[in-house]
Parts: sequence; C-alpha cells; structure tokens
Amino acid sequence: MLDASKIKALTFDVFGTVVDWHGSVAREVMAALPGHKIDGAAFAKAWRHKYQPAMERVRAGGRGFVKLDTLHRENLLETLAEFGVEGLSDADIDRVNTSWHRLDPWPDVVAGMHRLKKKFILASLSNGNVALIVNMAKRAGLPWDAVLGAEVAQAFKPQPQAYLRAAEMLDLAPSQCLMVAAHNSDLLAAAQCGFRTAFIRRPDEWGKAVKTYDLEAAPGIDIDVCDLGTLAYSLGC
Amino acid sequence: MLDASKIKALTFDVFGTVVDWHGSVAREVMAALPGHKIDGAAFAKAWRHKYQPAMERVRAGGRGFVKLDTLHRENLLETLAEFGVEGLSDADIDRVNTSWHRLDPWPDVVAGMHRLKKKFILASLSNGNVALIVNMAKRAGLPWDAVLGAEVAQAFKPQPQAYLRAAEMLDLAPSQCLMVAAHNSDLLAAAQCGFRTAFIRRPDEWGKAVKTYDLEAAPGIDIDVCDLGTLAYSLGC
Repeated sequence: MLDASKIKALTFDVFGTVVDWHGSVAREVMAALPGHKIDGAAFAKAWRHKYQPAMERVRAGGRGFVKLDTLHRENLLETLAEFGVEGLSDADIDRVNTSWHRLDPWPDVVAGMHRLKKKFILASLSNGNVALIVNMAKRAGLPWDAVLGAEVAQAFKPQPQAYLRAAEMLDLAPSQCLMVAAHNSDLLAAAQCGFRTAFIRRPDEWGKAVKTYDLEAAPGIDIDVCDLGTLAYSLGC
Repeated sequence: MLDASKIKALTFDVFGTVVDWHGSVAREVMAALPGHKIDGAAFAKAWRHKYQPAMERVRAGGRGFVKLDTLHRENLLETLAEFGVEGLSDADIDRVNTSWHRLDPWPDVVAGMHRLKKKFILASLSNGNVALIVNMAKRAGLPWDAVLGAEVAQAFKPQPQAYLRAAEMLDLAPSQCLMVAAHNSDLLAAAQCGFRTAFIRRPDEWGKAVKTYDLEAAPGIDIDVCDLGTLAYSLGC
C-alpha cells in the first residue's frame, strides 16, 4: 500500500501517458502534407515504430546522446521514403517533425494535473527534449513545475540515470517520487531505481483497441488507475 | 529598439530580480534561530557576500561543478561562525540553508509573470539549483514554463555556457531570448551571447536604499523598467 504522505513529486512519462501521440501525429501529418493522400494513422505508427530502435543505438553506446527531435527527424526521413513522399523542403520536413510538439492531452489530463499540482511537484520525465515538452505544454496548458527527463539527464529511459538524475535534481530520494506512466517497462525500470509507481490505462494509445499489451499494471506496480482524476483521488487530492 | 515579435522566451535571473532574497533570508534566519539574537539583515548580507567568491572557485576551474545548495551550506557554516552561533544540529543548519527555497517575490512579480506567460515562454536562468527554484516557485506561485540555469548547464553565470545552453534547450537562437535581470553584469554577459536584454530596477535588493550600483540599465541594454508589469506593457502583453 502506497503512503501518499511520503510522496513529494510525481514524475510523468509523456508520450501515450499524458498526450495522445497517435491521434495527434496522424492529424498533424495529414494537415501538413495535404496533397500526398497519406494514411495518417498508418504513418504515425510507422514513424513511432522507429523510436525505440533509434534510442537503443544511443543507449547501447554506439552513438553519443542526441536529443529526440534529431532522432525523430532521421526517422521521419525514412518514413517519408517508405510512404513514397518526395520533394519536401527542409521547412516542410521541420513542420512535420514538430508534430510531436503539438500533441493533444488525453481528456482527463489538464484537470487532473491541476488537482495533483496543489499537493505535489509535477515534473515531466520523458525521452522528449526540453523544447518539445515546453512547446507542447504551452499549447496544451500542461502545468509542469519542472521539465526534466532525457535531455537534462543526457540519458534515455529506461536507463537508470534518467530516473536517478531527476530525483537528484529535485533533491528527493527516489522513494519520494511517484513515476506515472502507461507503460509497464517504464514503471518497472523506475521501481528498480527506488521510485514508487502508478500505471495509467491508455488502451487507445495506438488507436482504438489496437494495443495488446500494457492494458493493465504489471505485478508490483503500486497504483493502477484509468485516468489522472482517479490518480488524484487515490492520492488524497 | 527591440522588436518584441522576434522574442520567443524570457529568461530570468531570480535572486534579486524575481525575489527579495535580502528581506526573506533575514526573516527566515531570525525565525529559524530565535534564541540567538541575530541581526537578520546583517546576516543575510554577510552570507550573500560569500556567494560570488564561492562560485568563482568553480568558474575558475579550481573545483568541479557543485550545486548552489552546497555552496550556500558551506558559506552558511562560515557565516554562523562569524556571528558566534554554535551548537546547531545538521537539521537546524539544513533548515536555515533552505531559507533560499522560501524567498518571497517582489510585489509585481506573480501578476507580471502571468501576463508575460500568455505570450512568451518563461524560463528561470538562475545560478540556483533546480530543487531550490522549483520549491521556491511552488511556495510563491511562480508560473515557470521551464527551470533552466546553472545546474542544467553545469556552469554558473556569467559563463557563456549558462546562457547558450538555455537557448539551445529551448531550441531558440539567442536573439529570440530576452534575459531579464536586475544586474547589469548578468545582462551584458547575456548580450555577449546574443541575447536581448531587459533591466528591472530593484533598488532595495540589499535593503532600503543600500544599493549604490545597478540602479539603472547600463548603456546597450534594450529595456530599462521598474517592474514586470511595465515590462509586460513594453512587450505588448
């Protein structure tokens, strides 16, 4: 049983947990490339599938740390080629690439964060870079107290350094931090570092009813809820 | 003449510019050490006088980067000895040291920041560490979009890296950032890095009418105003 009085900060995964990357990227890509008759949902999935392998090359040490905007752009060029999209200007490509700065929050998020913010420090702990998270927050009204994560730690989750550096920068013990995510692998890695953990169910992360895993919390996760309002309630906010 | 439409982010000095460190530290020290008959204002000044020399040892390369809470604590031990205060527990010392986490904003700040936040990204660019700035913001209601500065850059102002890393993390050119400070040395160092500059007059930073320098902007500073409300007005907010 989690003792909420021991928690000082909530550290959030962002893509999929706080924002609907699938629906938003699909929309943004179709809006940015109207003449290309792209299936936005298929494009979003294909682009996202290149995400973990790109970070893995950095995590494995084959490449120094680079920010996610850079990895996203490289993956975008490959995805555009796969979808037969040619002849885009650098400005066009940049506009599509910053789709990730314009993701919409899930419907429960803004109200839930405002409730949680009264009692806890709210920090992003995302693999997204600072500009991406800040621009997204300005557009969507996400009231972060601090933007931490991969770029600040110079390490991508699930590397321990990504979690431990966030706790250290907040001057908190890991056990005073509650990692909030829709992905068990993220939560279990945080738990290994001493964080407490809360799973948020986002069954439509990859589109309606597509997801076959991460439908509920794995054994050992402290909290398993369907949205941030329920999380706030369960933490006494 | 500054073209406000070119500015995307305001980066703020914090101690003295956003918050009244002198009055707040004086109050906090006297409250934390009631039996010691300390002159809080004299104590605050003595403690603050050790601030630049302590950072200078890091800037000069004689010492690796350490966060400001650590430098503050070392300086506090010296200041306590000078004021003849003995026999404090580690917990007492920590409580006094975190006085810097409990500084009050100047009266114009919260309303001014909310006006500015509608149009610009607001980031702290302070030598204070992340926990210090985050805890201060939670207590005082300062609506930062991002907490940047020394700990994130691993360099103390006025080192160029402190400014340049902040712009880089926001994915902005330095010329899209407006440095806001009550200290000309900070602004001139930012300007050397390509930042635009706004001076805020804080004549009572060291107590009523004590300050003999930094009473107005030096030549070359873009904006010279008396408070954040006036800054918002001058930037079209």
